[in-house]
Amino acid sequence: MKLLEERIVQDGRVLSEGVLKVDQFLNHQIDPALMQAMGEDFANYFEQKGITKVITIEASGIAPAVFTGLSLGVPVVVAKKNVGITMTDELAAADVYSFTKQQNYTISVSKSVLSKNDTVLIIDDFLANGQAALGLMSICQQLGAAVAGIGIVIEKSFQTGRSLLEEQGADVYSLARIRSLENGQVEFVEENLSQH
Amino acid sequence: MKLLEERIVQDGRVLSEGVLKVDQFLNHQIDPALMQAMGEDFANYFEQKGITKVITIEASGIAPAVFTGLSLGVPVVVAKKNVGITMTDELAAADVYSFTKQQNYTISVSKSVLSKNDTVLIIDDFLANGQAALGLMSICQQLGAAVAGIGIVIEKSFQTGRSLLEEQGADVYSLARIRSLENGQVEFVEENLSQH
Repeated sequence: MKLLEERIVQDGRVLSEGVLKVDQFLNHQIDPALMQAMGEDFANYFEQKGITKVITIEASGIAPAVFTGLSLGVPVVVAKKNVGITMTDELAAADVYSFTKQQNYTISVSKSVLSKNDTVLIIDDFLANGQAALGLMSICQQLGAAVAGIGIVIEKSFQTGRSLLEEQGADVYSLARIRSLENGQVEFVEENLSQH
Repeated sequence: MKLLEERIVQDGRVLSEGVLKVDQFLNHQIDPALMQAMGEDFANYFEQKGITKVITIEASGIAPAVFTGLSLGVPVVVAKKNVGITMTDELAAADVYSFTKQQNYTISVSKSVLSKNDTVLIIDDFLANGQAALGLMSICQQLGAAVAGIGIVIEKSFQTGRSLLEEQGADVYSLARIRSLENGQVEFVEENLSQH
């Protein structure tokens, strides 16, 4: 997605060979018009898949996910890292290992919001090692819901995430695919530039 | 806002005299079309205030906030409960006491996304004791930004939040004002029904 790649070049900051900071428009400060365009792009790609629910993980996945849900006309389920006092229904859960924090966290989804009648689109802001998306796939599997695809805002293509998800048979669609962050420069995967 | 009140009656569940569960459309599962309507309503109420940024707290505030930001044509700042590895800029922070969890948590905003040139609209999903909104007001004050108003999705009018915020001079606008959750019933503040 050209608009996103331009924004990454303009406002992103390479903190290290593995870390891209996009706090100015995606994580900490959010550009709603960009999120809307991203949601329309995801919806356009996955519209023939019969999706009944979008699912994401709090917190950074919520903005792209709600605009995708709006475009597809379906509800958005937010997997919770912190289970609140109102989550009184039975839960499905998965452990996710965070390489950046070097620890596990648990994500939970109430059985009241996802079932075997659902066909799910997973949306997340970053794809690096794929652990968050695998956790969401596990929850869908536990609840009998089909996973129609995975939409990613920014893919670090130099990490193993895409391979791991594709090994599970997932259709992974990323709006921006980063080949390298070496020497403080953002290099995109070439096919991406021609594709969008 | 009639649409929201009807949805609360239809899908909300009263767990106790103080706790309303809205996991089916606001917190855990999100209805994007309802969020869009709420965002337009907030934008309509505050459009003459010269707002330059919307601010909220992760995670449940994000959905209504991004649609408000879209309608007003301004960026949305998400105050973080967990400071990630990319938040390398200087931070403004405030401690927020959670009555439900009976403990303090810290919210943080990078100085790079809010300044004395900003006029801010605070958006949050619930107003009960007002502590989260007061924390956001404190952060705006620390960074010299003006607070133009506070938009709340669901106000528990039987708790002290509105009074505390109004004592600070804030213009508080709530889409649904709940007078009571006694006997398992949701009762709205009367003026709200005629007002919207």
